Amino acid sequence: MEEEIRKEFREMLAFLDAGKLSEFKEKAYDCPPVDIAEGLEEIEETGRVLRIFRMLPKDISSDVFAYMTSEQQQLIAESATNAELKALVDDMFLDDTVDFLEEMPANVVKKVLGNADEHTRALINQFLNYPENSAGTLMTIEYVDLHDYFTVRKAMDYIRRTGIDKETVYTCYVIDEQRRLVGQVSLRRLIIAPENAYIRDIMESVVAYAATTDDQEAVAEDFSRYDLTSLPVCDKEGRLVGIITIDDIVDVIQEENTEDIKKMAAIIPSDELYMDAGVMHLVAHRLPWLMIMMLSATLSSTIITHFESVLAGAVALTAFIPMLTGSAGNSGSQTSVTVIRNMSLGEVELSDWFAVLWKELRVALVSGAALAAVNFIRMMVFDQPGVMICAVVSFTLLCAIVLAASVGCLLPMGAKKLGLDPAVMASPMITTIVDCCALLIYFVIAGFALGL
Amino acid sequence: MEEEIRKEFREMLAFLDAGKLSEFKEKAYDCPPVDIAEGLEEIEETGRVLRIFRMLPKDISSDVFAYMTSEQQQLIAESATNAELKALVDDMFLDDTVDFLEEMPANVVKKVLGNADEHTRALINQFLNYPENSAGTLMTIEYVDLHDYFTVRKAMDYIRRTGIDKETVYTCYVIDEQRRLVGQVSLRRLIIAPENAYIRDIMESVVAYAATTDDQEAVAEDFSRYDLTSLPVCDKEGRLVGIITIDDIVDVIQEENTEDIKKMAAIIPSDELYMDAGVMHLVAHRLPWLMIMMLSATLSSTIITHFESVLAGAVALTAFIPMLTGSAGNSGSQTSVTVIRNMSLGEVELSDWFAVLWKELRVALVSGAALAAVNFIRMMVFDQPGVMICAVVSFTLLCAIVLAASVGCLLPMGAKKLGLDPAVMASPMITTIVDCCALLIYFVIAGFALGL
Repeated sequence: MEEEIRKEFREMLAFLDAGKLSEFKEKAYDCPPVDIAEGLEEIEETGRVLRIFRMLPKDISSDVFAYMTSEQQQLIAESATNAELKALVDDMFLDDTVDFLEEMPANVVKKVLGNADEHTRALINQFLNYPENSAGTLMTIEYVDLHDYFTVRKAMDYIRRTGIDKETVYTCYVIDEQRRLVGQVSLRRLIIAPENAYIRDIMESVVAYAATTDDQEAVAEDFSRYDLTSLPVCDKEGRLVGIITIDDIVDVIQEENTEDIKKMAAIIPSDELYMDAGVMHLVAHRLPWLMIMMLSATLSSTIITHFESVLAGAVALTAFIPMLTGSAGNSGSQTSVTVIRNMSLGEVELSDWFAVLWKELRVALVSGAALAAVNFIRMMVFDQPGVMICAVVSFTLLCAIVLAASVGCLLPMGAKKLGLDPAVMASPMITTIVDCCALLIYFVIAGFALGL
Repeated sequence: MEEEIRKEFREMLAFLDAGKLSEFKEKAYDCPPVDIAEGLEEIEETGRVLRIFRMLPKDISSDVFAYMTSEQQQLIAESATNAELKALVDDMFLDDTVDFLEEMPANVVKKVLGNADEHTRALINQFLNYPENSAGTLMTIEYVDLHDYFTVRKAMDYIRRTGIDKETVYTCYVIDEQRRLVGQVSLRRLIIAPENAYIRDIMESVVAYAATTDDQEAVAEDFSRYDLTSLPVCDKEGRLVGIITIDDIVDVIQEENTEDIKKMAAIIPSDELYMDAGVMHLVAHRLPWLMIMMLSATLSSTIITHFESVLAGAVALTAFIPMLTGSAGNSGSQTSVTVIRNMSLGEVELSDWFAVLWKELRVALVSGAALAAVNFIRMMVFDQPGVMICAVVSFTLLCAIVLAASVGCLLPMGAKKLGLDPAVMASPMITTIVDCCALLIYFVIAGFALGL
């Protein structure tokens, strides 16, 4: 399917190269804007990109522009005339304009704002000032607002007249004289309602709404919970100021997931695309945690040094250190990732902490016992360091796994309780802590059992 | 916001307890079905759940039923009369019925199928036979299909008459005499088009479609790529057989992310909800990887045993084993998770492997050098084992981190190349491999530098 669609872009180029401009423009209407934008990305020569973009029908070029990379947007914005830029911004949805401007250098932002009319300029400035990742930055002002005293006929006329410029017409929001949100009505309901019915009589109550400062994660949860395709955004006085549509929410969900996954791997999240990010940018987002974890490993060195006499008494013990710390770390990371993911999906609440701990302890006991038994047999058959050492290593393995599960369960929940992001308490952090604990258990048990 | 909505469910209960049935039913229309379903979940006494459910207005109860847990669905299905069950299934969207039946024991499935008419029964059986996680299991048959020879007036009449039972009316799909999909038309376009225009003249080409056997992940990618709210599904002959709507895709995206995260933490994914899963179920999904990783750690024991003479020559070396394997593991997991996530988002392709490796190597060199330098200073100041040992440990750290980055980059890409899921090659797997490599480097460098 995909290749077939990309074929349409190649056909567009063929028409252009053959000088068949009207065929080129006609084809452009059949090719999804995202495919044109991606096709342009593949073209190396910037002059050619600019020429193709200028040839696109006006109503298509703003859609294509919204899907382009920041680099190509900047290229086009810098080479566009003032009139071209004004036409482009006028045609784009406000949320796309704001997304574009957020990535631009000051000179481009200035050029765009200089070419916008006063009203648009004020709006753009207002949007640029909403907190990062808030409902305000996600919303668009291109929604259909109906007054509660409209009749269905008047509402349909209004939608027919203005709907073409709106991001969605399928859910219309109903406001009173003070522009306060009082209800919503779906287009489905409007088309089956009698023409002279009043909106206030057929409207439904609003399922969910957001404040401009609400975090995008909470907004995404409402979308998923109530199966919404759009959500109204209100200011502090309850006045409707915008709507958020599902296409932006799909991106938010992916972004939030990527952020969680990065945090779980001890990477400081950033919005930069991987292939665009420079080496020093990546280092800056990875080195801090590596450094912290390396320095905390000092503790494990101290423990080993402290118990040097135990190790000297039974040199064979050293050989099993990586297996013990590794297994405990893996088990702790299974538990912590499970707890973190379930908290972020709302499946596990803080109040469930005891049930979760109890469940994880039982899982750890069963898994630990199985691992310890297999390890005991393996050591007896292959390593043959003597029954006592086999028993010490296997018993340590069991204890370390139970301990790792407790740490992996309690640490993320504790972080959440303290208002920190639990995802930071995932695998690498847990591994470092569990390493030390496993070593301590190992030497105490060995010292006791072997009399060292 | 949420608490306010849950309040509505509490008010419903209060009306019911006070015997005010009509107020209860009226309130039920104001309360989102998902909130009623979750409210019912909180009620312990099954008799009370059944009584409340029976009191719900008929058109609401099927919506609520679709949101209930499998346990409560089973409870209701088992206690319902044949007539009640038939009414419930008739009112539900087919995709919700199929989701519900997939979780039910054989006796409930039999009871439901026995009460469905022949046509529905055949459809349900067909849906239950689609491969797991395929477009076929996601789709619904409640869509609007317009013939290309319809006029706009006829199409609008058709939508008004049948649209109330459709999952969406906002994108209508156009079919020819053989029910082959030939185009689509949005309701937005229909309401502004002249009443006597023909559908074939105003329809647009279909942006994307799926086959019944397509994987849900590919379907989700099309939704996100083309900002769709619904997608048509065709059979092998190109005939329209269903549509998939965005609300199901949001769930798919979350499911796929959870699956990736679990795999990255060396957990075998399962669809079971955490709080419902039994201890042995969790053990079965975690123990296999723990066991494999513990057994592969045998290799690290063998390496340590093999180099016992080196360790005996400089006992201080033992103390830095956990720091070295830990740091290398953390760095390898940062790289592997970055590569896996970017491949799954389509940001990195297999053909980029050299660019990615080159980038990761430079990041590892810079990070490794910084870590090695800090470690050298720390050891000189605090541990004071002599310059030579400090140098050996620090140089090993640098080498181990560069190696970990290469493994963390190449292994997931190699897995993808072989058609395996790259997510399996994440942190715990990488850690185990990197542990061995780090130890090997450590002892070789130490043996050489210290002349042991």
